[in-house]
Amino acid sequence: MKYPPSLVALIRELSRLPGIGPKSAQRLAFHLFEQPREDIERLAAALLAAKTELHTCPVCFNITDAETCDVCSDPTRDQSVLCVVEEPGDVIAIERSGEYRGLYHVLHGVLSPMNGVGPDKLHIRDLLPRVQADMEVILATGTTVEGDATALYLQRLLEPLGPTVSRIAYGLQVGAALEYADEVTLGRALAGRQRLGQR
Amino acid sequence: MKYPPSLVALIRELSRLPGIGPKSAQRLAFHLFEQPREDIERLAAALLAAKTELHTCPVCFNITDAETCDVCSDPTRDQSVLCVVEEPGDVIAIERSGEYRGLYHVLHGVLSPMNGVGPDKLHIRDLLPRVQADMEVILATGTTVEGDATALYLQRLLEPLGPTVSRIAYGLQVGAALEYADEVTLGRALAGRQRLGQR
Repeated sequence: MKYPPSLVALIRELSRLPGIGPKSAQRLAFHLFEQPREDIERLAAALLAAKTELHTCPVCFNITDAETCDVCSDPTRDQSVLCVVEEPGDVIAIERSGEYRGLYHVLHGVLSPMNGVGPDKLHIRDLLPRVQADMEVILATGTTVEGDATALYLQRLLEPLGPTVSRIAYGLQVGAALEYADEVTLGRALAGRQRLGQR
Repeated sequence: MKYPPSLVALIRELSRLPGIGPKSAQRLAFHLFEQPREDIERLAAALLAAKTELHTCPVCFNITDAETCDVCSDPTRDQSVLCVVEEPGDVIAIERSGEYRGLYHVLHGVLSPMNGVGPDKLHIRDLLPRVQADMEVILATGTTVEGDATALYLQRLLEPLGPTVSRIAYGLQVGAALEYADEVTLGRALAGRQRLGQR
């Protein structure tokens, strides 16, 4: 007894998604099989519509359905601060914090020589003309080895252009107990300590 | 700054899938956005094709693209043994073991009064006419509380019809160390011990 070919095809396509292995793909396929036809059609339509309507903003490379994205086309945003992030999802995460009113630049990845991702594969060349000497550039790549390496690379590239270059702070998560923090985070949190009454 | 509506729609549809929360759905949507158009079209087509071509076998309720499924339409299968499972995926798992040459019956679920799943919601009524007095019915529902309860319910329902009713064996997984087995499994493995030289 074998799977019908259309079931095999669906499982194969689903297992190409990140974080979905062959077993999860099989479970998903069986689940989808049990759903009403309208639900499947709505999912398929949403996939195609997203691919048709969405593109990257030509200025900051965030995802948008407009000519330039909401942030780039908003004149009330602070034009003197530029926050460099890895992925479009990071923009949403920062916007949600409500702490930032400047501009963004989305790299669409991190430097990863092991995986063949060099500076040419990221939107780094498009970043340079946006940077002015009287600006602050916040490097908000992840606190992974690759995120750190990318930040270091950008710092060396941008500093000659004259802007203030900063890196988002490392430290304990809000609500975290010291006891459960890993030693690297704790070391960084200690090194990045701030004098009280100065802020 | 807000997500474009087509991105919101895609995230909403993806997060309806089992085991995919809002965060995973967002990650999946961003991943899909980065993929070439052909890949998205192939996924959408596979979804629709699977829904169009697949249906349940009218005899055993396994998934098939033929009139009756491969097992039901194969005269070389042992017609005197019927294995009752919860889901179509279980059929594939048992077929893969290579230990079984009989027929199947797929319930499409387990009894779960807490979730409003009574006998009417499962393919139990369709099971009864398939059971003959000279048959063996193997109850191969899961070894969960609900799987056990469903097996007990079926046992009481089927025994008056005369077949031999059996339950798949509980025990240690092959390759498992006793030390790491949970106490319930170990208890069942001891209770189900088999005399050597008898098999």
